[in-house]
Amino acid sequence: MTIRFGLLGAGRIGKVHAKAIGSNPRARLVAVADAFEQAAKDLSVAYNCEIRSIEAIEAAGDIDAVIICTPTDTHAELIERFARAGKAIFCEKPIDLDGKRVEKCLAVIRQMKATLMVGFNRRFDPHFAAVRKAIDEGAIGDVEMVTITSRDPGAPPADYITRSGGIFRDMTIHDFDMARFLLGEEPVAVTAHASVLVDKKIGELGDYDSVSVILSTASGKQCIISNSRRATYGYDQRIEVHGSKGMVAAENQRAVSIEIANGNGYTRPPLHDFFMTRYTEAYANEIAAFIEGIATGAQAAPSGEDGLIALKLADAALRSVKEGKTITV
Amino acid sequence: MTIRFGLLGAGRIGKVHAKAIGSNPRARLVAVADAFEQAAKDLSVAYNCEIRSIEAIEAAGDIDAVIICTPTDTHAELIERFARAGKAIFCEKPIDLDGKRVEKCLAVIRQMKATLMVGFNRRFDPHFAAVRKAIDEGAIGDVEMVTITSRDPGAPPADYITRSGGIFRDMTIHDFDMARFLLGEEPVAVTAHASVLVDKKIGELGDYDSVSVILSTASGKQCIISNSRRATYGYDQRIEVHGSKGMVAAENQRAVSIEIANGNGYTRPPLHDFFMTRYTEAYANEIAAFIEGIATGAQAAPSGEDGLIALKLADAALRSVKEGKTITV
Amino acid sequence: MTIRFGLLGAGRIGKVHAKAIGSNPRARLVAVADAFEQAAKDLSVAYNCEIRSIEAIEAAGDIDAVIICTPTDTHAELIERFARAGKAIFCEKPIDLDGKRVEKCLAVIRQMKATLMVGFNRRFDPHFAAVRKAIDEGAIGDVEMVTITSRDPGAPPADYITRSGGIFRDMTIHDFDMARFLLGEEPVAVTAHASVLVDKKIGELGDYDSVSVILSTASGKQCIISNSRRATYGYDQRIEVHGSKGMVAAENQRAVSIEIANGNGYTRPPLHDFFMTRYTEAYANEIAAFIEGIATGAQAAPSGEDGLIALKLADAALRSVKEGKTITV
Amino acid sequence: MTIRFGLLGAGRIGKVHAKAIGSNPRARLVAVADAFEQAAKDLSVAYNCEIRSIEAIEAAGDIDAVIICTPTDTHAELIERFARAGKAIFCEKPIDLDGKRVEKCLAVIRQMKATLMVGFNRRFDPHFAAVRKAIDEGAIGDVEMVTITSRDPGAPPADYITRSGGIFRDMTIHDFDMARFLLGEEPVAVTAHASVLVDKKIGELGDYDSVSVILSTASGKQCIISNSRRATYGYDQRIEVHGSKGMVAAENQRAVSIEIANGNGYTRPPLHDFFMTRYTEAYANEIAAFIEGIATGAQAAPSGEDGLIALKLADAALRSVKEGKTITV
Repeated sequence: MTIRFGLLGAGRIGKVHAKAIGSNPRARLVAVADAFEQAAKDLSVAYNCEIRSIEAIEAAGDIDAVIICTPTDTHAELIERFARAGKAIFCEKPIDLDGKRVEKCLAVIRQMKATLMVGFNRRFDPHFAAVRKAIDEGAIGDVEMVTITSRDPGAPPADYITRSGGIFRDMTIHDFDMARFLLGEEPVAVTAHASVLVDKKIGELGDYDSVSVILSTASGKQCIISNSRRATYGYDQRIEVHGSKGMVAAENQRAVSIEIANGNGYTRPPLHDFFMTRYTEAYANEIAAFIEGIATGAQAAPSGEDGLIALKLADAALRSVKEGKTITV
Repeated sequence: MTIRFGLLGAGRIGKVHAKAIGSNPRARLVAVADAFEQAAKDLSVAYNCEIRSIEAIEAAGDIDAVIICTPTDTHAELIERFARAGKAIFCEKPIDLDGKRVEKCLAVIRQMKATLMVGFNRRFDPHFAAVRKAIDEGAIGDVEMVTITSRDPGAPPADYITRSGGIFRDMTIHDFDMARFLLGEEPVAVTAHASVLVDKKIGELGDYDSVSVILSTASGKQCIISNSRRATYGYDQRIEVHGSKGMVAAENQRAVSIEIANGNGYTRPPLHDFFMTRYTEAYANEIAAFIEGIATGAQAAPSGEDGLIALKLADAALRSVKEGKTITV
Repeated sequence: MTIRFGLLGAGRIGKVHAKAIGSNPRARLVAVADAFEQAAKDLSVAYNCEIRSIEAIEAAGDIDAVIICTPTDTHAELIERFARAGKAIFCEKPIDLDGKRVEKCLAVIRQMKATLMVGFNRRFDPHFAAVRKAIDEGAIGDVEMVTITSRDPGAPPADYITRSGGIFRDMTIHDFDMARFLLGEEPVAVTAHASVLVDKKIGELGDYDSVSVILSTASGKQCIISNSRRATYGYDQRIEVHGSKGMVAAENQRAVSIEIANGNGYTRPPLHDFFMTRYTEAYANEIAAFIEGIATGAQAAPSGEDGLIALKLADAALRSVKEGKTITV
Repeated sequence: MTIRFGLLGAGRIGKVHAKAIGSNPRARLVAVADAFEQAAKDLSVAYNCEIRSIEAIEAAGDIDAVIICTPTDTHAELIERFARAGKAIFCEKPIDLDGKRVEKCLAVIRQMKATLMVGFNRRFDPHFAAVRKAIDEGAIGDVEMVTITSRDPGAPPADYITRSGGIFRDMTIHDFDMARFLLGEEPVAVTAHASVLVDKKIGELGDYDSVSVILSTASGKQCIISNSRRATYGYDQRIEVHGSKGMVAAENQRAVSIEIANGNGYTRPPLHDFFMTRYTEAYANEIAAFIEGIATGAQAAPSGEDGLIALKLADAALRSVKEGKTITV
């Protein structure tokens, strides 16, 4: 069985997914749509697929599933349209920056019994997945404390900040999902500190660039998240889970793992430069999981609900900063 | 110039300090006092010094400085007595569990212009000191975010918990001092989450065994502290400082650094079993710094005020947990 | 420009190269040949190419280059045939186990001005290539001493040993090529020790399973090679180059880089299980370099001569063991 | 029982041993002798002991054991004198640069039933000792291949080279002893390559500065040794033992184990600067073992015979270089 794909959005992340589909023996990219003609054309040549309008993909009989990589403010509507069109849907996070809009969208998914998977790619990173597997196998006993360090190599342009929904909804949201993935229990209390240390313009736009968050679950498990929009040494992505019987951690990754020693010491190269290179395998595994889910009829995970819960945690973190108190969710 | 020492308290930590004095060419241990006769005797034999009463040490003309390693509830009174007796004083933390009592004690110190150094040993660990030095040399630019992971190998007995003042005043207090040491700016806001995950008895005694803390300074620098009373893999003591130009971290230490590889993977031994082995060099360096301070007349550091501020941060953390909000200090 | 490929041999390594061609945008796999019909069929389905006889590929006007992955004893003849047919040739090592046969083959290559690249895949490993690049950039000054550790996870079957030409020609030959790649100067003296420690049957077949080799160049640079047919912890592949200004090393690689800590210590998973997983990127880069060479008309490297020199070093190592002396080459 | 010591030679290594005796509760330094008056005086002040002539120490009733740290060419004679005087003897390696002289000396030791321990300090390094212990506990099965990397931070002065007996007898001799310590079986064949890459003057003096050695035992176990008189990154001291069931390795040590990350990568400090700092613990443990041996009457190890065998391996290595063949010992 081959899953036939339509790709909505041929930008940076669209190309990543096109490649993942192209290299997956169970999938075929049938059509790509993008408002920007050249982008669509480039992809259609590289992956030998058609260029179609969104409407044409919606109506197509030769397409089973769509990947939504369009701008965030189109996600919810496109999800609803393709759910109604009977296509399986993979959508980049977030579904929407507004929780209420997400809930309305998920109601459509439920009503149509549609398949919706949300792009929390990090769950599919082989190293992070191995951490989850080690926990499942009992290697560390009961999970007690999770530590997530997540720092971007540099601050995005002001333009991006404006559309992003703020650091908690744009960046920390990945860590909220990872926290839930690792804690194995829902956070019920959120506290956050936030400040502007990297780029004053980010502050002028009402956002933060450096944040620390604590989450707690009902049984008292805790998770700490540390975010910065700056890391001179590359894309810093670490997780550590401390449990009753031990600890498991996933270290940072680098493209090349040599070490040079001289009078200044022992030096290894910087980390991957950003998510495109750091999470190459994760993106491929993510699409493979989406395809596997369609093929077997399994529940999509992470689901639209996972996306909604992470968004609510982001909203709570922002409220915690504003009100100087722990927010119960 | 040789500094002549009196040692008050010949227990576990007293022995550590006796050894540090014994191996320091600028110091001599003249007398030891301990209510428990055998402990005093053992030390007097091992280090070839006299056994005296506290009163005799107080009145002695041949003693320049004292090391106070007696139970916590005697610290403040002994500091005051020896300040009045004109001795330089090194006191194990804390001065007292009650901030008001500490303030009263420090007033005596100021009045007598006495020298008081408080035993925050970790500042003198060569690895942590090297982190501070790297910051001072500009290796990471401006400090932005500090992460401190501090986990004991196992929970102390109920008896100890009762006298300890609780996890924030007993255990996290070291991390509060380290945070100040590394941030280079006073924390003004404290938030903490705390729970009982390791040992129910600790909860029954009104204390916690697993805590996460965020500190912020006026300029927005942040510090995260993660504490647990349990770590199956040894005494977990790590610090990491993230700055505008880079990051510096001190890794965990182990007594033996071999690695064994087989079908199960690559295994290094567990960490040091606890502070006595982990901080051997730190304790020796700490006493050396105290001696150096006396010899040169330099200001003692960490001072009684450092002890007081760390205690106030501990009090604020506890209040944050109780009230579910960020506490301003 | 797209290079059109014929693949001779659809076995384990043939599949690796087919995948490398399939994922390279500048290459297309046109036809596959294999005496074992099912193997050819599987590949033709997976990569959407034709099944043809070797003769048909030889005569084909729609094929620019061939990849030779057939049994070793067919390599030399196939190289000659395809050189005469005007195809660019990539051949898995070795060209032949007999140096004289290799020389005869290379004479044909020179006569036909054909392109021949030999499959020393390790030169294309990103980590090893980065070591070479660091040397080229002067990071360690003049190369002085190279250390190569190369251990297979387990001994091959007796059947394989018989056809292999012995450990020096089969296994160490890769390290001889790596030594030349890193030394940047030809070895002129070879000494080897060899024994049977892993599997008695290997000894009964007249071969060894554990060898140590020293190479020296005219200027006195040295290289040490350590080989074993056994490594319980995975496929052990390390290089280290010591120079006048420093050292550069490439560490082992593992599929998943997590670490689990508990009372037994800190454990990372075993290494890759063998060359198929360890050198995935190297194989893809190798074919990309072959394609690049054809496209630009650059000299193929590693060349047939590189293959011959490595073989001569292997022959010398074997003689050194037999005669108990250093062999000059 | 306190062992009373006489120290012969108050130079660099003499000070190290004086400190080890001073910090050992079972030992007391009674007297020091040195032709250079100031050196003896410094030590006598620092450790509160007498200055005596060698003859006086020889005749002393209040001295049980001597540490010989005088120049190499006095070792054999002093050993014989103190053996006849009934003192337990610890002598820095080598006993003599001439094997025949060593044999004559050891005959005296046997005749007098004297205790002689030779200063192969590395056996007492906690990390290397832990490697040996892991082997003894069966962690890696049967030992198959040992790799020893041993590089000095820089070349010694010409003056030292002249007296040293050459690199094999001066530097590699430590590795020959370590090889025996780890192989658990006597080497029977030695091959070495040697060249001058670091300092031409060393070559002009007839010595080498860069050597590679292979040792084999009767059962086919192998050991590789890599030596250089130069390592810009510090004192490089590594061992690795590969066995039938796994591998165990001891990594390099550094005084401070922090890591700084920035745009240039992740940098750890250089290694220890030389043996005085690298082997601090080893020297203390070595003297403790000597004392323990005297106290319990156990056989001294490493013994004079261990010193002799290591010397013979050094002689064989030199012959191998000169004759271009494997030397049987």
